[in-house]
Amino acid sequence: MIMGELSAERAREMDAADPLAEYRERFVFDDPSLIYLNGNSLGALPRATKKRLEEVIATEWGAALGRSWDHWVDLPELAGEAVAALIGAAPGQTIVSDNTTTNLYKLAAAALEARPGRHVIVTDNDNFPTDRYVLEGIANQHNLEFRLLSTDLDDGVDPDLVRRAVDDDTALVSLSHVAYRSGAFADMATLTQIVHQSGALMMWDLCHAVGSVPIELDACDADLAVGCTYKYLNAGPGAPAFLYVAARLRDVLRQPIWGWFSQRDQFEMGPEYRPAEGMAKFMTGTPNILGTVAVLEGARLLAEAGIDRIRAKSVLLTEFLAELAAGWLEPLGCVLATPREPEHRGSHLSFKHPDAEAIVAELTKANIVADFRTPGRFRFGLPPLYTRFIDVHNAAAATRDLLIARGSHG
Amino acid sequence: MIMGELSAERAREMDAADPLAEYRERFVFDDPSLIYLNGNSLGALPRATKKRLEEVIATEWGAALGRSWDHWVDLPELAGEAVAALIGAAPGQTIVSDNTTTNLYKLAAAALEARPGRHVIVTDNDNFPTDRYVLEGIANQHNLEFRLLSTDLDDGVDPDLVRRAVDDDTALVSLSHVAYRSGAFADMATLTQIVHQSGALMMWDLCHAVGSVPIELDACDADLAVGCTYKYLNAGPGAPAFLYVAARLRDVLRQPIWGWFSQRDQFEMGPEYRPAEGMAKFMTGTPNILGTVAVLEGARLLAEAGIDRIRAKSVLLTEFLAELAAGWLEPLGCVLATPREPEHRGSHLSFKHPDAEAIVAELTKANIVADFRTPGRFRFGLPPLYTRFIDVHNAAAATRDLLIARGSHG
Repeated sequence: MIMGELSAERAREMDAADPLAEYRERFVFDDPSLIYLNGNSLGALPRATKKRLEEVIATEWGAALGRSWDHWVDLPELAGEAVAALIGAAPGQTIVSDNTTTNLYKLAAAALEARPGRHVIVTDNDNFPTDRYVLEGIANQHNLEFRLLSTDLDDGVDPDLVRRAVDDDTALVSLSHVAYRSGAFADMATLTQIVHQSGALMMWDLCHAVGSVPIELDACDADLAVGCTYKYLNAGPGAPAFLYVAARLRDVLRQPIWGWFSQRDQFEMGPEYRPAEGMAKFMTGTPNILGTVAVLEGARLLAEAGIDRIRAKSVLLTEFLAELAAGWLEPLGCVLATPREPEHRGSHLSFKHPDAEAIVAELTKANIVADFRTPGRFRFGLPPLYTRFIDVHNAAAATRDLLIARGSHG
Repeated sequence: MIMGELSAERAREMDAADPLAEYRERFVFDDPSLIYLNGNSLGALPRATKKRLEEVIATEWGAALGRSWDHWVDLPELAGEAVAALIGAAPGQTIVSDNTTTNLYKLAAAALEARPGRHVIVTDNDNFPTDRYVLEGIANQHNLEFRLLSTDLDDGVDPDLVRRAVDDDTALVSLSHVAYRSGAFADMATLTQIVHQSGALMMWDLCHAVGSVPIELDACDADLAVGCTYKYLNAGPGAPAFLYVAARLRDVLRQPIWGWFSQRDQFEMGPEYRPAEGMAKFMTGTPNILGTVAVLEGARLLAEAGIDRIRAKSVLLTEFLAELAAGWLEPLGCVLATPREPEHRGSHLSFKHPDAEAIVAELTKANIVADFRTPGRFRFGLPPLYTRFIDVHNAAAATRDLLIARGSHG
């Protein structure tokens, strides 16, 4: 890392040089004093999404009413393809449906059925809680072994650890592409290959990756993936998640929740369940239309900005924060809990500090939104489409000042 | 049925005497020529819900952003209790979560685990497709027998049929309280008692009942129930469904999708899954917030109007339509496919006619929304909060006129 001047002036120069700077205007930010470095429990509201949701509520629901189902039924696949463009998925492999948890459950169950006679599900202790719990549950229900690897919470998944953990008894491995706590990258190509060598299937959780880093599911030969849409895809609170099934598996796998939206010729309402062709077979019941509309809008906005430009800005943002932290926060007792090399991390940085929870509470009072995460970390999310370098500077400066006021020292 | 005059004047008199007439103004109806007798794939938009959704989007998402989770996390239980007031459920047994299909899956799996050693799941061929498919799937996955009773499609579930079908090998029976096609009522108290005598658990689908008829889950000693919110609860397209688990079973049952919103001390993000206390244990992942807000608004509006007044108007509406049909439609070849006695039906009427699909298409062109349902039926839904007697009159008259124009005869 080349250290530059840690000044507001430099931050403003970086903002002036930012080719994506104009995108901040595409979001609703009514409070000019707010510094919003969350981006993980909820991305900001795109103006186009606000307008579109108001239209759908007033016009498609309020006026056209049930007749709107004629085109609403196409939305899960339409929104799925908009997400597909961000995750390196050729058409016909992605659909928007349910939440991440339920999608993990459906795809894990489908994977187990496709790997009969194998008795082990593998994930790591750094995976997001809902991933660990769902897999623990499904292992319990199928009398399988649930193998939880001990990953370093700051450095992310070590491929050698996975290589030693999988064998011809492994049915499924599931990992997060970007770790929710540390932001560490898991090497998708290498890990998928390791898992395939054992004959197991590989399911990726893209929640903290999609919309902030380039993802190449097809090129990495991934089997399955899920991801949420309310973080970097800016689709709003509880918007539906997406799921990906590689074309070579799509027609083979069978998911366990046999709902009417996954039925072939749904409105025939026939006597027996026959899975739909294509990705609809991975749906369950009636989809969340407002949320799916917001996914479509959010994914299109990201595609318009371009994921490569987004990633380039993300690297500059996290590098700038790392510099500020090295100059101001690390001497005051903060320890970077995210890989130092930008190629090994996504779009957020975490710091260990014994008073992490109190620091986040004090930042909130100063109108700076960050997250506390156990054990003892505060996290700054830097969504590239609307985060300014001056926000990063001011948040780091505020953190420095409150640490000094608290009497922290290294 | 006492026949009155089949005139528009009589319809207008009934509207003038309707104590719920004012409630139509609480909904968005921009097109005065529209006659909306669907109500089953999508209820109308309450003005309060439109306003509240716009507020939540602009203020709670757009301005407060991720900080709104502080109160959003309470919404699934809050909306659940608002629904509970409509279904005869004491507090602590109802929650809003996922869609009906996923809720059926979760509760059916929970029921099977609570009835080990029993090998049969029972439902009927008149149950809604997603119910049949989900239960067929879960029977398949657990190597159980899936027993599909042959119910008369017009008269609804015969208790004797169920009595003969259940025994000490039955784990679960699931039926709809109001049949989606015929509108026939299943006798909840009697059927639940029959099922309990076999030692099985009883799961009710309330989709076509909730918000239109009084429901007494606790008094009927029901075990489990699910229902959607986008019909008579007017919560919008793909709003989340609800589920009910009787208090005596709540702490015993375990659902299969072990997501983080069903975890005790969720934000501790602990290493192992420990189901939450109370109804949260039946949730999965991140809930659909906009939809849950709309459920809360919709359920409150119905509670304000009062379910007994709603039911009283529903009976008058369906009686009036039955009269009009007897006078005008039955002589032209339509056959009532709904029980004639109001105490045996919910709030919609279906009619058999060989050209049912074409009739619905022609009504649509005349700005009258009804539904086609296989085999060969058209259905008029009469949501009491916003359906006028004049709408019923005009829809029946239009149907009569188009049947005459088509050359139909009895």
